[in-house]
Amino acid sequence: MNPTELLETPVLIALDWGTSSLRAYAMGAHGAVLAARRSEHGVMHLPAGPGVDSPAAAFEQALQALCGDWLADHPSAPLIACGMVGSAQGWREAPYQPLPSREADLAEAVTRIERPGGQPLHVVPGLLQAGELPNVMRGEETQIMGVLQSRANGRHTPSRLLIGLPGTHTKWAWVEDGAVTRFETFMTGEVYAALSQHTILGRTMELGGPQDEPAFARGLRVACSKLGALGVLSTVFSVRTLGLTRQLPGSAQPDYLSGLLIGHEVAALAPALRDGPAVVLCGEPELCLRYATALEAQGLPTPEIRSGVTPLGLWRIAQAAELV
Amino acid sequence: MNPTELLETPVLIALDWGTSSLRAYAMGAHGAVLAARRSEHGVMHLPAGPGVDSPAAAFEQALQALCGDWLADHPSAPLIACGMVGSAQGWREAPYQPLPSREADLAEAVTRIERPGGQPLHVVPGLLQAGELPNVMRGEETQIMGVLQSRANGRHTPSRLLIGLPGTHTKWAWVEDGAVTRFETFMTGEVYAALSQHTILGRTMELGGPQDEPAFARGLRVACSKLGALGVLSTVFSVRTLGLTRQLPGSAQPDYLSGLLIGHEVAALAPALRDGPAVVLCGEPELCLRYATALEAQGLPTPEIRSGVTPLGLWRIAQAAELV
Repeated sequence: MNPTELLETPVLIALDWGTSSLRAYAMGAHGAVLAARRSEHGVMHLPAGPGVDSPAAAFEQALQALCGDWLADHPSAPLIACGMVGSAQGWREAPYQPLPSREADLAEAVTRIERPGGQPLHVVPGLLQAGELPNVMRGEETQIMGVLQSRANGRHTPSRLLIGLPGTHTKWAWVEDGAVTRFETFMTGEVYAALSQHTILGRTMELGGPQDEPAFARGLRVACSKLGALGVLSTVFSVRTLGLTRQLPGSAQPDYLSGLLIGHEVAALAPALRDGPAVVLCGEPELCLRYATALEAQGLPTPEIRSGVTPLGLWRIAQAAELV
Repeated sequence: MNPTELLETPVLIALDWGTSSLRAYAMGAHGAVLAARRSEHGVMHLPAGPGVDSPAAAFEQALQALCGDWLADHPSAPLIACGMVGSAQGWREAPYQPLPSREADLAEAVTRIERPGGQPLHVVPGLLQAGELPNVMRGEETQIMGVLQSRANGRHTPSRLLIGLPGTHTKWAWVEDGAVTRFETFMTGEVYAALSQHTILGRTMELGGPQDEPAFARGLRVACSKLGALGVLSTVFSVRTLGLTRQLPGSAQPDYLSGLLIGHEVAALAPALRDGPAVVLCGEPELCLRYATALEAQGLPTPEIRSGVTPLGLWRIAQAAELV
């Protein structure tokens, strides 16, 4: 058997096209993932060279390189994509849509990119929360729809959900009756990287060791107690001073800092978290477990954890757009 | 007249020896600065090459290069230094001293480094605040003594002061009856640098323009109002989203971020600031003015601003040590 041959005919080619990678999913009836592939051709790392004479050509070539066989073998399968491919730096900008937003709103707003000799690509828009402190997401709206889709079958879905999406920029989205009504962003992951790589705190940190759960718990405890009252700009200095006073070895400092930052984030959200919505965490499982530990340390119920739901979200939006 | 000749005989050679620079002051009777010099030979940038066969030799050579003429012409003038020269990476470690601490406590704890063929160097120790979140300072203890010395003549000094020392790591020190009783650290300056140089926020920032006071005030307002309730990990993302939504040009983003960070710091300290001590800011004048604006925006009285007080602080400690 040809290794590129699919056992079932795909009815949708779904793309998760971010800054640093491109993931493609061949999806069968009922949203099953028949095959998944990944390349390094994120929006910021597109192919160059002969034949790539325009941004559009670079995007097309990246797509062909990853799944040209799927496109050739199944020329009638529609294409849908989410992520930075729809940003101003992407293939074409898919303008941010306002709140509240359901899958039908996203489906109605998809940007259609014609592809000579093939199916057009439908790009899911991001979301914009207007206000004095505006907020944006691009890609996470599809993950949220994926969480909703993953809960749609065989179980009662509460009318109110708070979905946490831990990552470089952690998003928290409030969902009511299937519509995103509000969301917030915390730059926790990127601040962790900047502090550990580009400040004095990194000088004594030993990165790369095994996870140090007590150190993480200690950071959480500081951030969520009276000790954290002066805020994160103050508490992070304790990474250094606990090291100087030989109370925290360099190997424990990375997880202590992680606990401090996630703890400050969760402490800031505590009033909203206590407000009663069921919490679902969605993202890289190890990072979600850190957030789950932080929620439990605040006396909150253990959240559900989901990951890999982007194809399900693309499926849900493709259904609403009547592509499948 | 030889340009190196002093008009008055110095009675103290005082050194402010930090990480990135060395400053020397020839001080006359009553603590007047007769002459000041600066070199790049901070603790992390010492001279190397022939004749420098040990760390001590490198420190001695840096000292000779900057003020060997003073030492030769005035061989009986005592020497005192503060700053990173007394750290574990310095000429010799001057161990941190506990709180509360007055000039007499610092004077008693100076570390004496013998210098063959010259006066010994007396190194002022730093301060350590023990506790679950320990805190350290090295160099700032001398600036605090300088503030006290600068207020000692001709005016009533309140028994309680809160001294803010804005910088890479901003310190806030509570002083009661001339003794440092408590202090806190905020990594505000270094976090500003890390965020603007090593995160996505820097991509849209235009650095190097003139100061944008309305943008700074806007950042303060966000941090100190309900908008800032989710904390700095959340509000900093608005640098990007206000840019994306064309509400804040790239040229305004650096000062907006500065306002956000200083605003969060001052908001965290607001309870202590409202507690009544007179506030004095000490440091680089432009940065002190930013903090003064932040305090005024919180409805607090305009603080006094001092700068260049390190030689006065060294003088005060040298007096207590009976070096002058």
